[in-house]
Amino acid sequence: MVQGLVDSSGSSFTPLVVVELAPDTKEEAIAWLQNRITDQQQSGGAELLVEQLGPGVGAQEKENPNMFLVGATWQRLLSGAEELGLFKEFNDGSMRAFTFANKHNFKDFEGDGDSFLSMAECQYIIKHELDTLRARDETHVPGHTEAKLYPGKSIVRRLQSKGILIQIFPLHDQEELKRLSFSWYKKVKLSFQPLDAIRHYYGEGQALYFGFLEYFTLALVPMALIGVPYYLFDWEGYDKYVVFAAFNLVWCTVILELWKRCSASLAYQWGTLSRKKAFEEPRSGFHGVLGFNPVTGREEPLYPNAKRQMRIYLVSLPFVLLCLYLSLYVMMIYFLMEGWALSLHEEDPTFWTGILLFVPSIIYAVVIEIMNFIYRYAAEFLTEWENHRLESSYQNHLVLKVLVFNFFNCFASLFYIAFVMQDMVLLRQSLATLLITSQILNQFMEAFLPYWLQRRRNKKMIRKIQKAATLQDIELPLAEQVRLEADMSTYLGTFDDYLELFLLFGYVSLFSCVYPLAAVLVVLNNITEVYSDAFKMCRVFKRPFSDPAANIGVWQLAFEAMSVIAVVTNSALIGMSPQVKAYFSESETQLILWTVAIEHGLLAVKFILTFLIPNVPKHIQIKLARLEFESLEALKKKKMLEASELSKSSR
Amino acid sequence: MVQGLVDSSGSSFTPLVVVELAPDTKEEAIAWLQNRITDQQQSGGAELLVEQLGPGVGAQEKENPNMFLVGATWQRLLSGAEELGLFKEFNDGSMRAFTFANKHNFKDFEGDGDSFLSMAECQYIIKHELDTLRARDETHVPGHTEAKLYPGKSIVRRLQSKGILIQIFPLHDQEELKRLSFSWYKKVKLSFQPLDAIRHYYGEGQALYFGFLEYFTLALVPMALIGVPYYLFDWEGYDKYVVFAAFNLVWCTVILELWKRCSASLAYQWGTLSRKKAFEEPRSGFHGVLGFNPVTGREEPLYPNAKRQMRIYLVSLPFVLLCLYLSLYVMMIYFLMEGWALSLHEEDPTFWTGILLFVPSIIYAVVIEIMNFIYRYAAEFLTEWENHRLESSYQNHLVLKVLVFNFFNCFASLFYIAFVMQDMVLLRQSLATLLITSQILNQFMEAFLPYWLQRRRNKKMIRKIQKAATLQDIELPLAEQVRLEADMSTYLGTFDDYLELFLLFGYVSLFSCVYPLAAVLVVLNNITEVYSDAFKMCRVFKRPFSDPAANIGVWQLAFEAMSVIAVVTNSALIGMSPQVKAYFSESETQLILWTVAIEHGLLAVKFILTFLIPNVPKHIQIKLARLEFESLEALKKKKMLEASELSKSSR
Repeated sequence: MVQGLVDSSGSSFTPLVVVELAPDTKEEAIAWLQNRITDQQQSGGAELLVEQLGPGVGAQEKENPNMFLVGATWQRLLSGAEELGLFKEFNDGSMRAFTFANKHNFKDFEGDGDSFLSMAECQYIIKHELDTLRARDETHVPGHTEAKLYPGKSIVRRLQSKGILIQIFPLHDQEELKRLSFSWYKKVKLSFQPLDAIRHYYGEGQALYFGFLEYFTLALVPMALIGVPYYLFDWEGYDKYVVFAAFNLVWCTVILELWKRCSASLAYQWGTLSRKKAFEEPRSGFHGVLGFNPVTGREEPLYPNAKRQMRIYLVSLPFVLLCLYLSLYVMMIYFLMEGWALSLHEEDPTFWTGILLFVPSIIYAVVIEIMNFIYRYAAEFLTEWENHRLESSYQNHLVLKVLVFNFFNCFASLFYIAFVMQDMVLLRQSLATLLITSQILNQFMEAFLPYWLQRRRNKKMIRKIQKAATLQDIELPLAEQVRLEADMSTYLGTFDDYLELFLLFGYVSLFSCVYPLAAVLVVLNNITEVYSDAFKMCRVFKRPFSDPAANIGVWQLAFEAMSVIAVVTNSALIGMSPQVKAYFSESETQLILWTVAIEHGLLAVKFILTFLIPNVPKHIQIKLARLEFESLEALKKKKMLEASELSKSSR
Repeated sequence: MVQGLVDSSGSSFTPLVVVELAPDTKEEAIAWLQNRITDQQQSGGAELLVEQLGPGVGAQEKENPNMFLVGATWQRLLSGAEELGLFKEFNDGSMRAFTFANKHNFKDFEGDGDSFLSMAECQYIIKHELDTLRARDETHVPGHTEAKLYPGKSIVRRLQSKGILIQIFPLHDQEELKRLSFSWYKKVKLSFQPLDAIRHYYGEGQALYFGFLEYFTLALVPMALIGVPYYLFDWEGYDKYVVFAAFNLVWCTVILELWKRCSASLAYQWGTLSRKKAFEEPRSGFHGVLGFNPVTGREEPLYPNAKRQMRIYLVSLPFVLLCLYLSLYVMMIYFLMEGWALSLHEEDPTFWTGILLFVPSIIYAVVIEIMNFIYRYAAEFLTEWENHRLESSYQNHLVLKVLVFNFFNCFASLFYIAFVMQDMVLLRQSLATLLITSQILNQFMEAFLPYWLQRRRNKKMIRKIQKAATLQDIELPLAEQVRLEADMSTYLGTFDDYLELFLLFGYVSLFSCVYPLAAVLVVLNNITEVYSDAFKMCRVFKRPFSDPAANIGVWQLAFEAMSVIAVVTNSALIGMSPQVKAYFSESETQLILWTVAIEHGLLAVKFILTFLIPNVPKHIQIKLARLEFESLEALKKKKMLEASELSKSSR
C-alpha cells in the first residue's frame, strides 16, 4: 500500500484516488470543491479526506499543480460499502449485503475492519461518493460562471463536462501489482489465471473478461483437437464433414450456455449477482431542458425520448446502412481488382505481375483499416449526438453500431467468396490469411506498441528525477509515482478486447467446416492474448475503476447471435460441398430442401437447448432462494409482532 | 354479501370459504382441525373463524354433515393482506404493498376498512392461511393414523392427499354475481368486457384470460377486414398474396408484443406486476424421503432432481414421441382411406359411395377425439408420476405435453396436405371444415352441455326443498346455497380456454395466406366465446379461488412459438403458390433460395421487433422505477441515521 498522508484536519489517510483539475482552475473553485468533498454528510458533503499533491522532485513549470489525492477513514468506507449495497461473504458462507451494524458476522472482518474492503472496492466507493456529490444552492461553480449548477446536479459530472476536471483515476498499489503480475503472466508454467486476485485488484468487470477469455480458450480446445486430424489427413468424406460441422454447432451453443452458468457462479462468489444496482446518474455529456425527473423528482435535464428515437432511426440507422453499403462497394472493387490482377498475371506472368497479385489485398486491407477508424469516430460522434441519458444505454448503442460494421468488414468478403463465388479453396485461403494477419497485427497494436511508447515516457521521467536505478524495480516517491500514473494511457474498457474475441469466434464458428484448423489458431492466439492483455493491464495503462459487473452484458447476446448465424452458414456450406452434392446428384431441389430442413432443425435444437440449460447453477439458485426466503420470513415475523402489539394496545 | 353467521366464540362473521371433509372423518380430527384454524397465530393457529354448516331444509341422510364455513375478522384479513404482500392503490395513484401501519394512506380505505378488500381477495387470503397452517408436534391427524404429519407439514395438503378433505372452495356472492353477469354477458350491446369487475370477482388470472380473449379478438379485426376482399374477389395475384401474408406475419408479431405491454398495464393496475411471490409450498401429491429443504431449512419430503429428470427424459419424452408417431400413423391411414373412398366413388359414383366419401373424415375425427382423451389422461398420470415439487412446475410440464400433442393432432393433416400433397384447394377446404366444426363442437361441449347438466341437478335440488319459485331468481337459504355450490362442477383453470385460443391462433396464422377468411371466422367465434365463457363462469362452475397472476405465463411463449412456425409455413406456402412459381419459371433452385432468404429475413425482423418493443410501457416503467428509487433512498437515509447515531455514541 502507498505510504500514508496527513489530511489538513490532521488525520492520516491512505491516498486512493487522484483528482486532476485543469491548471487554470480558479483558487475559489478549488477551495469550494475541497470543502464539499470533506464536508459532513448531513450537510451534503462526501465526508472524504483530500490532500493536494506536492511538487515532484525536479519540479518544473509545466507540471500541473492541481492534483489532489482523495482517501477516507475506514469507518467512512464501511458506511459507503453499506450505502452501495456491496455484497460480502457472511459467516455461513453465503453472500449478503454488507451492513455496518452486522459487520462482525461477516467473514474476514477483523478488528476495525481496515483490511475488510479491497483497495479496488475502496476506490469504487470513493468514486461513487464523488459522483453523487450534488450541488445545493450554488448556481455555478465559484469562479467559473460558465459551469452552471442547479440543486441536485452532480458536481463532478459538471466539472468533467466543462473540462475543469481533467481526470479521476485510482492509484496503483505497486506491491500488490508486483505480486499480481508475477502470478498472472510472469510465470511460464501452464496454469489458470488468478481470477480472484484479478478481481481483487481490478474489480469484477475486468475479472469477468479474463474469465471469459480463459473459458473461451478452454472451450475451443476440443474443437481444435478434433480439427487437427481433419486438416492433417485431409478428411473430406461426406459423413466426416457433416459430423465435424454438427459437433461444432452443438458445441458453440453448449459453451455459450455453460458460460452463463460459469459467469453466474463467478458473479455470485464475487457478490455482484444479486446486488441491487443503484439508481444510475445521467452521463456527464447528457444535455436537455431543465425539468423534473419523473423517477427521482430531482431537477435535471430532460430530453424527449421521441426526439432521440428520431435521431436514431432517421439519422444513425441510415448512416450505418450507408456505411455498410460503402463497405460492400469497396469490397466489390477489391474483387474486381483482384480478378484484373490475376488475369494480367495469367496472360503474361512476370516478376512484376507476381507482385501485382498482392497489391489489391494490401490496398483493401489499408482501406478497411482507414474505414474502420473513420467509422469508429463517426459512431462515437453519432451516439454522443443521440444524447443518451445513461452511460449504459450510450454504451449499448455504440457497441451495436461498431459491432455491425466490424462484422461486415471482417466477414463480408468471406461471405462473398463462400456463397457468391462458391470457391472453397479461396475461402480457406482467405480465412487463414485473415486470421493469421489479424492476430499478429492485434497483438502488436494492442500491447507492444503502447508498451514501447510508455517505456519511452517513463525513461524521460526517470531521467528527469536523476535516478539511475534499474527501470523495473525502481521505488519512486509518491508525488512522482502519481504523476507517472497520471501520464499513463487511459484504459478505455473491455470493449476492444471483447470485440477481438467476438471476431475470432466468428472465424471459428462461421466457416468452421471449411477450415478446421481455425480453432487451433484461435486457441494459440488466446493463450498469447492472456499474456499480452495481462501485461497491458499491469504495465501500460492507468488502473481503471472497478466495475461491479454481474455478467458480460451485451456481449453474451452478440456471441449468441453469431452462433445463430453460424448455423445458417455452416448448413449452407455443407449443402454446397461437392460430397453432399454428389449424394443428391439427381435433384438439386431435394438437396436444398433437405439442407433447409436440417438447418431449421438445428436452429430449433439450439433454442430448446437454451431453454433446457438453466442460466444459474442449481446450488446458487438454492442459495439465492434461501436469502430471499429468509428476508421474507423476517419481514413476516416483524409484521406479526407489530400487529400483535397493535392489537394489544387497542384492547 | 351472504348473511352473517355467529362463530362459536360469539363473534359474527361473513362466511367466505367452504371446507368439506369426508363424511367418515373422525370427531376428534374435526375438533382438532377446528381448533387449529381458530387458534391464535402466536400459537401456530390461523386465527380464522369457523362454523359447521347446519342441515339443509329437507335434510336427508346422504347429505354430508361435515361442511364448514370459514371466515375472519376484518383485522385478521387486513393483516393477512399485509403478510401476502397484496398491492393496493396508494393515495398518490401508485400501487404499493399494503401495510397495516400505513393503512389510512391507501385509497378507498375508509373507517375500519371492512370494504377495502374485495371478497375474492379475502377468500384468497383465507385459502393462503389455511394452506400454510402447519403441523407442530403431531405425528398424525388425530383419529386418522394413516395421515402422517411432521413438524412444518401443511395440514390442509396432507388432509387433501389422504382424501379426508374433499374440497375447499370460495362462496359465490349472489348479488354481486347478478350484477357482474348483467354487465358482462346479459347486455346485448357491443361493449368491452367489465375487466375490472371480473378481476374484482374472480381475481387476476381469470381477468387476464378474458382480457387476452378480448385483446386477441380486437387484434384480429384488421386481419379479418383485410381478409374479406381477398376471399370475395378471389384475389390471387402474386403481389396481393405476398402482401397479405407479409402483413399477417408482421401483425402476429406486433400483436403478441403489444399484448405483453397491455398485460403489464393490467397487472400493474391490479397490483400483481411487482408483487413478490411468496415461497411456494410443495404440491399435495408430492412425495419423497423426509429431509431438510435447503432453502427453508424445514423438514419436508425431498426427491432427487436427477431421478425426476430421468423420468422425464427416459419415460415421458419417449412416450410423447411415440404418441406423436401413432397420431402420424393414424393420419396416414386416414389419407389412405380417403384416397381409396375417392377412387371408389370416381370409378362408379352412386349414392352410397357419395356417403362413403364422408366416412374416413368421421372415423378420423372420432379416433382423434378418443386419442386426445386418452392422451390427456396419460399426460396427467405421467406428469403426476414425474413427482414435481411445485404446482407451477407440474402445470408447465402438463401444458407442454398436452400442447405438443394437440398441435400435432390439429395441424399434422394440414401440414401433410400443404407440403406433401401440395393441394391448396384441399388445404383450404380442410382448414374451413376443421375451423368451423371445432368451433361449433367447442361451444357446445364447453358451455351448453355442462349448463344443461347443472340445470338438471339444480332442478332436483329445488324440487327437494319444495319451492316453486322461478329458477333464475330464487333466493335459497344459506345452507341450501352452499350445498348447491358444493355440487357444482369444479372449474379446472384457464388451461382449456387458452388451449382453444392457441389452436384458433394456429388456424389463423399458420395457413393464413391460403384461407384469408379464417380470421373472420375466429373473430366471430371469439365474440360468442366471450359470452359462453362468461356464462360458464357465472352459472355453471363453482367459484374458483382467485389467482394473482401477473401475465398469461407459459401461453405467451406458446403463442410466440406458433408465430415463429407461422413465418416458416407462410413463406413456404408463398414459395409454392403457382403465381410465384410462374415468376421463377426458369429455375426452381432460384425460387427456393429466394424463399429461404426471405423467410430468414422475416425471422430476423421478428426477433429484432421483439427486442425493440419494450415489454412494459414507459409510464409504468417510470412508476416502478420511482417505487424502487424511493425504497432505496429510504434505506439509505435510515442507514445514514444509524451510522451517525453510532458515531455519536462511539465518541
